[in-house]
Amino acid sequence: MTLRPLVAAALTLAFSLPQKHPPESAPQAAHRWRVAHEQQILQEFDTLLAIPDVASDTSNIRRNADALVQALQRRHVAARLLSIPGVNPVVYGDIKTPGAKHTIVFYAHYDGQPVTPGEWDGKGPCTPVTRMVNGEPRIFARAAADDKAAIIAQLTALDALQAAHVPLKANVRFVWEGEEEAGSTHLRDILEQYRTELGGDVWLICDGPVDQSGRQSVVFGARGVTRLEITLFGPNRELHSGHYGNWAPNPAMMLAQLVASMKDSTGHVLVPHFYDGVTPLSELERRAIADAPANEALLRQEFGLGHTDGDGKRLLELLNEPSLNIDGMTSARTGATANNVIPSTATADIDLRLVKGVDWKAEQQRVVDYVASRGYFVTDSTPDKAMLLAHPRVALVVRGRLGYNAVRTPMDLPIGQAVVKAVESARGPVVRLPTMGGSVPLEMIEQTVNAPPIMVPIANYDDNQHAANENLRLQNLWDGIETMAALEAMP
Amino acid sequence: MTLRPLVAAALTLAFSLPQKHPPESAPQAAHRWRVAHEQQILQEFDTLLAIPDVASDTSNIRRNADALVQALQRRHVAARLLSIPGVNPVVYGDIKTPGAKHTIVFYAHYDGQPVTPGEWDGKGPCTPVTRMVNGEPRIFARAAADDKAAIIAQLTALDALQAAHVPLKANVRFVWEGEEEAGSTHLRDILEQYRTELGGDVWLICDGPVDQSGRQSVVFGARGVTRLEITLFGPNRELHSGHYGNWAPNPAMMLAQLVASMKDSTGHVLVPHFYDGVTPLSELERRAIADAPANEALLRQEFGLGHTDGDGKRLLELLNEPSLNIDGMTSARTGATANNVIPSTATADIDLRLVKGVDWKAEQQRVVDYVASRGYFVTDSTPDKAMLLAHPRVALVVRGRLGYNAVRTPMDLPIGQAVVKAVESARGPVVRLPTMGGSVPLEMIEQTVNAPPIMVPIANYDDNQHAANENLRLQNLWDGIETMAALEAMP
Repeated sequence: MTLRPLVAAALTLAFSLPQKHPPESAPQAAHRWRVAHEQQILQEFDTLLAIPDVASDTSNIRRNADALVQALQRRHVAARLLSIPGVNPVVYGDIKTPGAKHTIVFYAHYDGQPVTPGEWDGKGPCTPVTRMVNGEPRIFARAAADDKAAIIAQLTALDALQAAHVPLKANVRFVWEGEEEAGSTHLRDILEQYRTELGGDVWLICDGPVDQSGRQSVVFGARGVTRLEITLFGPNRELHSGHYGNWAPNPAMMLAQLVASMKDSTGHVLVPHFYDGVTPLSELERRAIADAPANEALLRQEFGLGHTDGDGKRLLELLNEPSLNIDGMTSARTGATANNVIPSTATADIDLRLVKGVDWKAEQQRVVDYVASRGYFVTDSTPDKAMLLAHPRVALVVRGRLGYNAVRTPMDLPIGQAVVKAVESARGPVVRLPTMGGSVPLEMIEQTVNAPPIMVPIANYDDNQHAANENLRLQNLWDGIETMAALEAMP
Repeated sequence: MTLRPLVAAALTLAFSLPQKHPPESAPQAAHRWRVAHEQQILQEFDTLLAIPDVASDTSNIRRNADALVQALQRRHVAARLLSIPGVNPVVYGDIKTPGAKHTIVFYAHYDGQPVTPGEWDGKGPCTPVTRMVNGEPRIFARAAADDKAAIIAQLTALDALQAAHVPLKANVRFVWEGEEEAGSTHLRDILEQYRTELGGDVWLICDGPVDQSGRQSVVFGARGVTRLEITLFGPNRELHSGHYGNWAPNPAMMLAQLVASMKDSTGHVLVPHFYDGVTPLSELERRAIADAPANEALLRQEFGLGHTDGDGKRLLELLNEPSLNIDGMTSARTGATANNVIPSTATADIDLRLVKGVDWKAEQQRVVDYVASRGYFVTDSTPDKAMLLAHPRVALVVRGRLGYNAVRTPMDLPIGQAVVKAVESARGPVVRLPTMGGSVPLEMIEQTVNAPPIMVPIANYDDNQHAANENLRLQNLWDGIETMAALEAMP
């Protein structure tokens, strides 16, 4: 209630300005609107964050989607859900601009990573709280940074442009996905079914963090991703380590020996053919990396790293190579509940990141082949005793059913230059990068709606994305609103 | 109430027999008593198992101890707690026999391994249930096999001998420990303080399983044991594996590489000097192993093992070598809650089993030295960021504060021959072994009360000792009662 007079005053100001001053730029209009409406913006953000958003939680996913359709409709945007049966819907908004030469598509996702509430400080992943970090406010909640911030920035930018009567020049489309963190399982199906609605001259992927230096980045691609889970078997029940130690094989040791042999001590992957087919960087791409800030020292300090992998290569170079990462490794128990046992099983979850030229299924197969080459009989379903007895070593390898390949949009396309120009009008000189280390399903966009994807992230790099205590630095939201306003108003 | 007439009838029979027949042997008396009193015996066993018994749970430990003192006193045994402040008490019972030439000490322990109730079938670790396994009844509960069965067998044997008027020939002492599963942390202190009460000509260690063939065993020693926990460090918070994978070191991979290098593919330990100082087996000991049943094929089938460690050596040979076993290994999460992250830490819990000639502290040190030799700065308290940044690699190694060495009592001592003779009077030809694979704190018995320890286990080998669903095969309890009766009545 106390906000009402402020809002009214701001609206009056917004509507009166065009008649008295030179027309505002989109970023200027966004800035003025934000300063006058911070509480209202945060209220809308908090309400969205309070809705649980794990992709498998379909009833809450639907609540998110419905709320977002309404948020677009409140802005007079033609909005609806693009659905196919049994799939989390895409929230779709469409603004047709008379005389437009281009159609700009804004992609974001409204689902978040799975959560382990006990690991969160405060009131858990779905109760947004603001806490100070390094003297600046941040909002802590699942999806605060990845990726609901982008959605709120796009909505608020619309408010600002409408209030300041800054006209749009292009057609603008919003495409907000509901299962990105589950691997964008059905996005391809939706893209194929709704090709007409989803086409455009460029897809702006508003996801991921800006450069660690704090400078705004525009990123022309992203790594692909897929997963594998490897489980090895010892005795079919935990055995007393005294009575059987030295004789009964220990699956934790077997797993250690198996995964240890997949990399050398610098992190270089030793799985045969792992780097085969990688498309080399172009001269323009190499130059962009050379021109980008060197953040390694900052990051080592920030993360407390006494050494780094990569044999001295720069982080940005290494993000243009495929990677093999252990997401987690478990066998029996450690700490207070540990027992003197030979564990029964040991499991490692592994994610593979792909770069241009490497197919995700082929890369999965190389890892599976490697496991087999180490003497394991590989099965994709839980082995029974007969199978375990029939082979010296058995590995249950569950391949992630889905994955996607990397994309690198050429850095010299005219539409890409226009995107950079718009972003720079809001944020000054940007960091241009050929590849984001994280993964976004860009490949299927190229393949279905034939649009070049370009990434314009807004989150802070130190956002605990994918982990407990995910957070968004508030200033990144404010900056992001101006960036989105500039892009929504681009020609 | 329905038991009363049966009990009365049995007592009448017991008291009347000596006048009508040749004197019963101790095992015969035990057999007859057991058959007539199974319900009563199981009632006492269940009541004891229902008291939680993890050593750290001091109030329940005290309930166990008090119940056991009362159980001895009901048998007219002078019983009390041997206590020192802040320590789980030893339950002590003492029977002085006029004209005795020997004092026989019966050791067992009333504490059990830590429990993870969710892993148990049925009603959890402290609600004993009887289930059929391979057509035979077993009692499922924590400590059912390890080691409350031995206590109930010793108590019941006393009942049987008293009822049948089978006279004791030696002094008999009961020593039931309350923190064996916590590493017998203070047993040495208690032994030193109560040297007089705890002395004897032989300590019979009634713990562990009989031979896997089902034959009764008499074991002249046990491996020593100690523990280590190794934690390695990656980024100080979990990082997005896309944005930092290939650059930020992964502690799960580092841990895999570290522990993998501790053993070759046959399980032979590669830590330098790990086998230094091992006392070779005597001719008598080697012969005993050669004469013991070969259970490997049975066990491979039972446990579903497609291969075994040890490069073709027999299990019994391997139990006479030190071992290094991973009890558990954890880093971030696997399965449904896994995230695409670079974990922050990775931990392995390791137990070391020692054999005669190898000191537990020296063996710990060899492992610590090995970790350091792999480029790790080793600390024994959680490193701060400054320490993590000051060294390329930091390992937090928490050594088990306590441990003990292995013991092998010579197989040709006269008191040992007498023990074998008594056991064989109950159970027929026994399997004699120089070393049990599991660990019991025999060393401190030698060092404090100067008594040779000999192990007379009664539990089944497949008892899930130290794991969920621990169980005792009921027939092993019945046999154990006869074995304990023979030993209580030995000269």
